[in-house]
Amino acid sequence: MTIFTGLSAFPITPADEAGRIDTYVLSRLLDRLCVAGVDSIGLLGSTGSYAYLSQAERGRAVAAAVEAVAGRVPLIAGVGTLRTDDAVALARDAKRKGADGLLLAPISYTPLTEGEVFEHFRAVAAATDLPLCIYNNPGTTHFTFSLPLLRRLADLPGIRAVKMPLPGEGGLTEDLARLRGALPEGFSIGYSGDWGCAKALLAGADAWFSVLGGMLPETALKLTRAAQDGQSAETARIDAALGPLWALFREFGSLRVVHAAANLMGLTQAQPPRPILPLQGRDLDRVAAALDPLGLR
Amino acid sequence: MTIFTGLSAFPITPADEAGRIDTYVLSRLLDRLCVAGVDSIGLLGSTGSYAYLSQAERGRAVAAAVEAVAGRVPLIAGVGTLRTDDAVALARDAKRKGADGLLLAPISYTPLTEGEVFEHFRAVAAATDLPLCIYNNPGTTHFTFSLPLLRRLADLPGIRAVKMPLPGEGGLTEDLARLRGALPEGFSIGYSGDWGCAKALLAGADAWFSVLGGMLPETALKLTRAAQDGQSAETARIDAALGPLWALFREFGSLRVVHAAANLMGLTQAQPPRPILPLQGRDLDRVAAALDPLGLR
Repeated sequence: MTIFTGLSAFPITPADEAGRIDTYVLSRLLDRLCVAGVDSIGLLGSTGSYAYLSQAERGRAVAAAVEAVAGRVPLIAGVGTLRTDDAVALARDAKRKGADGLLLAPISYTPLTEGEVFEHFRAVAAATDLPLCIYNNPGTTHFTFSLPLLRRLADLPGIRAVKMPLPGEGGLTEDLARLRGALPEGFSIGYSGDWGCAKALLAGADAWFSVLGGMLPETALKLTRAAQDGQSAETARIDAALGPLWALFREFGSLRVVHAAANLMGLTQAQPPRPILPLQGRDLDRVAAALDPLGLR
Repeated sequence: MTIFTGLSAFPITPADEAGRIDTYVLSRLLDRLCVAGVDSIGLLGSTGSYAYLSQAERGRAVAAAVEAVAGRVPLIAGVGTLRTDDAVALARDAKRKGADGLLLAPISYTPLTEGEVFEHFRAVAAATDLPLCIYNNPGTTHFTFSLPLLRRLADLPGIRAVKMPLPGEGGLTEDLARLRGALPEGFSIGYSGDWGCAKALLAGADAWFSVLGGMLPETALKLTRAAQDGQSAETARIDAALGPLWALFREFGSLRVVHAAANLMGLTQAQPPRPILPLQGRDLDRVAAALDPLGLR
């Protein structure tokens, strides 16, 4: 059992227009997650705008989060960045400040080779003794992990989990079987892409890396527990109620939608980092309409 | 006639492992380009590793370049970065330090909408009075400009040129006709992707944004002038001699190849920023073999 199991809640990182994090609001967001009882917190994931924040601000976020969480829930910090030396520095800083685990995506500008990604992960994994989760997110990193590369990485000390995108062709059962067959016993396999994650948990995935969990932890936990218990009907019922929200996540990207939701719920007035623009007008109304039946406003 | 015409030479930015630029070596590289007589210099393009350098180092590069070039050739500075406020700051800094033009790519992590890219470009174009070239490079930015978006951007004050990728389907003549039909009179249309750029110039493109030009300016100028003069046979002859180099650019990415070439030519010992790894062994031998017939070592 690793810290990369169950519902991993990925909150937004509230920041002002200049990218300065509001650690007070961040701490309140994290407290909600701890009180709800999520299984882990994924700080500075894609939903947490990590790619848009300076290293100094990311350090401030980790320090504030460690203090706010106060050991109640394992804290996983995203340390992805373009340069290997920067990612190593972020990993060491996260360790020093008290994070419990690391999440690393192979952000790219120049498309990377498999050998380059392997060396990048090796350097970051070796920088601390924290367990590390591979963040496989081709939609933002534009790098796709092959099964042999995942296997080689899983053999490195410290690399304990992978956060997978939902499979395109073929189903979750086939995707999980393919991964389980290639990866070591005890290696955690989780998914992101909220609209498919209940099905992933039902199919036996170890973790749901969840945008919803970072904003509506009680709802995400109900869905997680129903799926983990194999209650197909109850899982389908909760999942269906979230259908309008999933549709918005897919249409606008979850980062934009979850900022809008946080605004509507009165949790923060922070917006996504520009160039990303906040949802407005009719789009914003649709987010409100998707939230209303959940009784959250 | 804009500064975005003819051979725009894109040099590497020599830096150490920590991303500290060697301004002495950079100045020597730029002096070679000025002496050869390139039509402009594209500092801090993709070949110049701009995405991997800190804002402070990018400012140092511009300052050193302005001093080295000393008005002999127009200097275009790449100001692309993930955040709009950072790109605006880089543009202002480049202006203050004496650059003659700007190059802006819509780098993305979260995939961007057309509206977001428009606002991003509008903000950067409005930040200075320097002419700006749109850097359309889907292979690294993962954003593809539609023709209507290019048209809207071309109508903004200051936006004067586009740097296009080589067209996939359909030929260069068709691509150019499509662009000329949509964009204003006098708007400069150039291409990058060295292996297709002689054909692009023959077809009537305004500019070649060239990796080769940043390393082997005399050779790139011969090819440019032959194509600009419509000498198809001479253009084909020079282009064919460069065939092995083009093949390596396509196989390994020009950033890796051109660092290897610069090393082999004794111009610098700098390597690409990690996670990008230098070419080694047989791959490096192939770069040497491609350079040898050009009489450059």
